[in-house]
Amino acid sequence: MSATIHRLTSREPSLEPMISLVTPGMNAVNAVILDRMQSDIPLIPELAGHLIAGGGKRMRPMLTLASAELLGYSGNRHHRLAAAVEFIHTATLLHDDVVDSSDLRRGRRTANIIWGNPASVLVGDFLFSRSFELMVEDGSLKVLKILSSASAIIAEGEVNQLTAVRKVDLSEERYLDIIGAKTAALFAAACRIAAVVAERGEGEEAALDAYGRNLGIAFQLVDDAIDYVSDAGTMGKDAGDDFREGKMTLPVILAYARGNDEERAFWKAAVTGHRNSDEDFIEAIRLVQASHSVDDTLARARHYGQRAIDAIGAFPSGKAKDAMVEAVEFAVARAF
Amino acid sequence: MSATIHRLTSREPSLEPMISLVTPGMNAVNAVILDRMQSDIPLIPELAGHLIAGGGKRMRPMLTLASAELLGYSGNRHHRLAAAVEFIHTATLLHDDVVDSSDLRRGRRTANIIWGNPASVLVGDFLFSRSFELMVEDGSLKVLKILSSASAIIAEGEVNQLTAVRKVDLSEERYLDIIGAKTAALFAAACRIAAVVAERGEGEEAALDAYGRNLGIAFQLVDDAIDYVSDAGTMGKDAGDDFREGKMTLPVILAYARGNDEERAFWKAAVTGHRNSDEDFIEAIRLVQASHSVDDTLARARHYGQRAIDAIGAFPSGKAKDAMVEAVEFAVARAF
Repeated sequence: MSATIHRLTSREPSLEPMISLVTPGMNAVNAVILDRMQSDIPLIPELAGHLIAGGGKRMRPMLTLASAELLGYSGNRHHRLAAAVEFIHTATLLHDDVVDSSDLRRGRRTANIIWGNPASVLVGDFLFSRSFELMVEDGSLKVLKILSSASAIIAEGEVNQLTAVRKVDLSEERYLDIIGAKTAALFAAACRIAAVVAERGEGEEAALDAYGRNLGIAFQLVDDAIDYVSDAGTMGKDAGDDFREGKMTLPVILAYARGNDEERAFWKAAVTGHRNSDEDFIEAIRLVQASHSVDDTLARARHYGQRAIDAIGAFPSGKAKDAMVEAVEFAVARAF
Repeated sequence: MSATIHRLTSREPSLEPMISLVTPGMNAVNAVILDRMQSDIPLIPELAGHLIAGGGKRMRPMLTLASAELLGYSGNRHHRLAAAVEFIHTATLLHDDVVDSSDLRRGRRTANIIWGNPASVLVGDFLFSRSFELMVEDGSLKVLKILSSASAIIAEGEVNQLTAVRKVDLSEERYLDIIGAKTAALFAAACRIAAVVAERGEGEEAALDAYGRNLGIAFQLVDDAIDYVSDAGTMGKDAGDDFREGKMTLPVILAYARGNDEERAFWKAAVTGHRNSDEDFIEAIRLVQASHSVDDTLARARHYGQRAIDAIGAFPSGKAKDAMVEAVEFAVARAF
């Protein structure tokens, strides 16, 4: 066990070490993904391929592979399971874009805009089913339990978010419940299953779960902050999307809580869809900045990022651990 | 083994014997369904409950239970698995109603009309995940394989149907592929898993699979015929829905193939959405009747129904077999 204490540094962090670490494995994962998104129905690989080839970083399968490296696992079961994780994520994205009526993701037109909502719903269902077929082929009931449970939690989180939309008085606690479910649960599961295939004990499973979960929360917090600091180029999504959809994210929750009566009236009108022009969005950005709500959202992200790093503190030092630490630093530094 | 040859009879068949056969088991299944559709997010049980309590016959879980009875299975694993089958079916219905923009199912307003498409998509995802959690709790990888494969096939069938919509020259073969996937695959799986929990061999698994598959095809053929013979009261769906949506079903495929130039021009216009008034629907009914296309769709249904009955011919006589035979007779007689 290493006694090194990792801290968030001030140099420019990068995802590069993790990408290098997992490149050979990711080639195997990508081969599984390409093979298993095929179907006799041509629309399925066409639509799935649009999103799968669409420039995502494949964070979740990378986390499965990096976690396996951290444990010194030398088999290849995790390739198929990492593909299953990515299929669950892809299915979720397809359904999310229908739910949010999104028209842009990662700078490209969304599948629902190109092929329509029905096709996106059904191809999402197909990929979700395929992910379970992949897990069944692997044959671990423990992995199946972890990922079926994560899938149910994701769906619950998405419904929770849906019922929280346009509610200006959403609490930070409920917001954290939502992102813990819709984002962090799959990050946690992606890391935890590496410990299962490496046949490690509950302690190491829990440590990797905590790494993934805290990283996932940090990742989502930064995503939500970015909507109030940047333009479409940064994220490949339209800046202000969350604002216009009345989605309650932490920058808004904090700005509302910290606002005076006039500012709260603005937020109420904005969140309920009565003030959503470009000028209103500029005013929203001014208010979240003035109340330090974006800064403090990013501070919260750093808190969870540090917890992610500390969760794997007891694992041996080495390339895998360094890469996983720097991936956290990268995730929380994206907005700067 | 029984030497009785079952034939479709001319008396009024009923689902009653099957319902009586499985009533004790269905009480257990319904308890699992009610328990496992719960969630801390109130919208989930509210929306799921609307559909689950909405008067469906629960054909698929009944088939699992009846198949288990046929095999003399005395355990209770099939209760949880029958609930898993119903959850897959319910998830499919929720997504189907979004895909088809339906507003009425079983005579009630659809969930997507009451709560919107986003909630229907997400609660469908939740129920689908829950169904896998139930299977994981049961712990049979074989059952997981059967139902994950069926789920992927259902989604493929739905996409296949989506790409076939408004195509007037759809072949009967492709139509059979579509209904084999979107409907019959789950009927087949629902029956097959009973043989797995009863630890029977591949022969009995295959026989029950064939029973379910042929019954499923017959069931869907009759459903598709009903759209051209009845009003909303019979099915709880709007008569003419398939017609107005340009959905190619066997009555239309046959009427088009058998039509003269003028009739084919009508069907082309109708299927592509250029003739979909009430008067056009009346003309469509006239044409399918005149060409015996509904009669022959029902004849096809009887063919598959007979194959379903013969598939379980070698099982011992008794209440379970009689009920399963009469359920087929009921399914093919519904339209008369």
